[in-house]
Amino acid sequence: MKQKIIKPKVVIALGGNALQSGKQEPSAEAQLEVVKKTCEHIAQISESGYEIAVVHGNGPQVGRIMLASEFAQEVTPMMPFDVCGAMSQGYIGYHIQQCLKYALNKTNRHIPVVTVATQVIVEKDDPAFKNPTKPIGAFYTEEEARQLESDKGYVMKEDAGRGWRRVVASPLPRKIVEIDAVKQLWDSTIVIACGGGGIPVIEKIDGTLEGVAAVIDKDFSAELLAEQVDADILMILTEVENVAINFGKPDEKKLEHVSLMEAAKYVEEGHFPAGSMFPKVEAAMKFVRAFPQKKAIITSLDKAVEALEGKTGTVFTFN
Amino acid sequence: MKQKIIKPKVVIALGGNALQSGKQEPSAEAQLEVVKKTCEHIAQISESGYEIAVVHGNGPQVGRIMLASEFAQEVTPMMPFDVCGAMSQGYIGYHIQQCLKYALNKTNRHIPVVTVATQVIVEKDDPAFKNPTKPIGAFYTEEEARQLESDKGYVMKEDAGRGWRRVVASPLPRKIVEIDAVKQLWDSTIVIACGGGGIPVIEKIDGTLEGVAAVIDKDFSAELLAEQVDADILMILTEVENVAINFGKPDEKKLEHVSLMEAAKYVEEGHFPAGSMFPKVEAAMKFVRAFPQKKAIITSLDKAVEALEGKTGTVFTFN
Repeated sequence: MKQKIIKPKVVIALGGNALQSGKQEPSAEAQLEVVKKTCEHIAQISESGYEIAVVHGNGPQVGRIMLASEFAQEVTPMMPFDVCGAMSQGYIGYHIQQCLKYALNKTNRHIPVVTVATQVIVEKDDPAFKNPTKPIGAFYTEEEARQLESDKGYVMKEDAGRGWRRVVASPLPRKIVEIDAVKQLWDSTIVIACGGGGIPVIEKIDGTLEGVAAVIDKDFSAELLAEQVDADILMILTEVENVAINFGKPDEKKLEHVSLMEAAKYVEEGHFPAGSMFPKVEAAMKFVRAFPQKKAIITSLDKAVEALEGKTGTVFTFN
Repeated sequence: MKQKIIKPKVVIALGGNALQSGKQEPSAEAQLEVVKKTCEHIAQISESGYEIAVVHGNGPQVGRIMLASEFAQEVTPMMPFDVCGAMSQGYIGYHIQQCLKYALNKTNRHIPVVTVATQVIVEKDDPAFKNPTKPIGAFYTEEEARQLESDKGYVMKEDAGRGWRRVVASPLPRKIVEIDAVKQLWDSTIVIACGGGGIPVIEKIDGTLEGVAAVIDKDFSAELLAEQVDADILMILTEVENVAINFGKPDEKKLEHVSLMEAAKYVEEGHFPAGSMFPKVEAAMKFVRAFPQKKAIITSLDKAVEALEGKTGTVFTFN
């Protein structure tokens, strides 16, 4: 009798550094080179015996799409921000598909890789909409900014002396619209889903979905996806091998294993900066709170396989 | 015993008019309104008892993306054409997903709708590469055009007195890279695949795929998809209810039923203009040649259901 080997399921959240070079305005071609290397690491995870889904960020890419669209307004109508997000999913998903398939084939693993365009429902009364914080698109003068506020209803903020930029909300992901398709593809493919945190949509009373200008944190979307596909591990890949407390100080301490209670204490003590390590730690905590018998790992891309073997990384568990 | 009802499978190729209003430079918001209406028709096809995959065109959308990217070159690096295609798949797929899901829900059909980013392999020695014909992107002066030819190796052509434009090849689709995912999703979802004819890639000796600047005809990709999923019907939706011979002349004759041999004769007599009805007729002929017991239909979106019932449209069969 043929037995199906049950492989542990891991949802991987890929940070920006896994998708683009350090150059300030890297071209798509330069990004593709970085994606190639990233995909070799992901292929290794697959080879180590895991079933995988990938959730990627899209900050620099959607930024470029938005910038080009704003800049070209006089020749072609500007794209709404939700559409820019959808475009970035096609763009990055295509690159990962192409490079990951190759990396897998090289090790004789002929697994299909497939990008699913993903809408993620947010609540229209999410408190984040009252206090937009995520800057997107081009820089403007104060005068232009005021004009955009009155013409288009944008919220504009001064950005660290560099000029004025539009800011949008970062609401929490509530529901992944295409979750059934992701589940169905899971067993036999590597799925790329919720790119850039997902295209943010609100659900109206009549059931229609409507795109909104917002940025969903990809770590939170990865966590939601991991819950919904009943993943065994949520793995958040970032620039550092371990989460640290007292980061950058003489008494900096790398964390190897953190219980939910310890993590909560560190959060309270303010060890993790907002918009950087904080959402990652919060997502990891949320996952082990939802599944007390499972674990979340935060580590760097090149240490991912070792971290899965328990040799490095910061591992979050319930106890 | 529960019996599975076997529904006929139809691959629908959606033309440009199903995706955008007649305005010369419609915004994404205006296009969304057109997509809503289109999706009501597609939902009706689903309700009539068919399993569906949708292949859409992307001409105007990828044109806008390319135009914005070219125009904004001084602020952000220009996007390669294959990436623009991938972006258009995300953009259009997202809109169809959103609108079709709603149209289906309204009739109590809770079928997931899912867009799969799709690469399509073309042959690098396809004769089309020797004679590029598809204009893309912005208009240039002759001087600028010559500069682009020497700087970037573009092929530039004068476009009907309106200026010079880059032209790219239109090679034939050979293989759908993500076909396994499409097959797997088919039974339980409506799949949107091969958008814009697919992202054109060539397969290199070492097995890597590489994006190329080319436009694959979406009717040919739809035909290839229909063959590979063993579809019962290839349905090409366009602006007219019937294919006609002597089109626009006093002796114009609408075609209702055409055998392969009759179609070949009409093609030979030059009834179908290149770049418009010709590729549609060719795709229909290819399908019935591959599956002599099946049929291909060319009709308009609003007559699609009637055409499936055999009441209108032009039906192609082997005999």
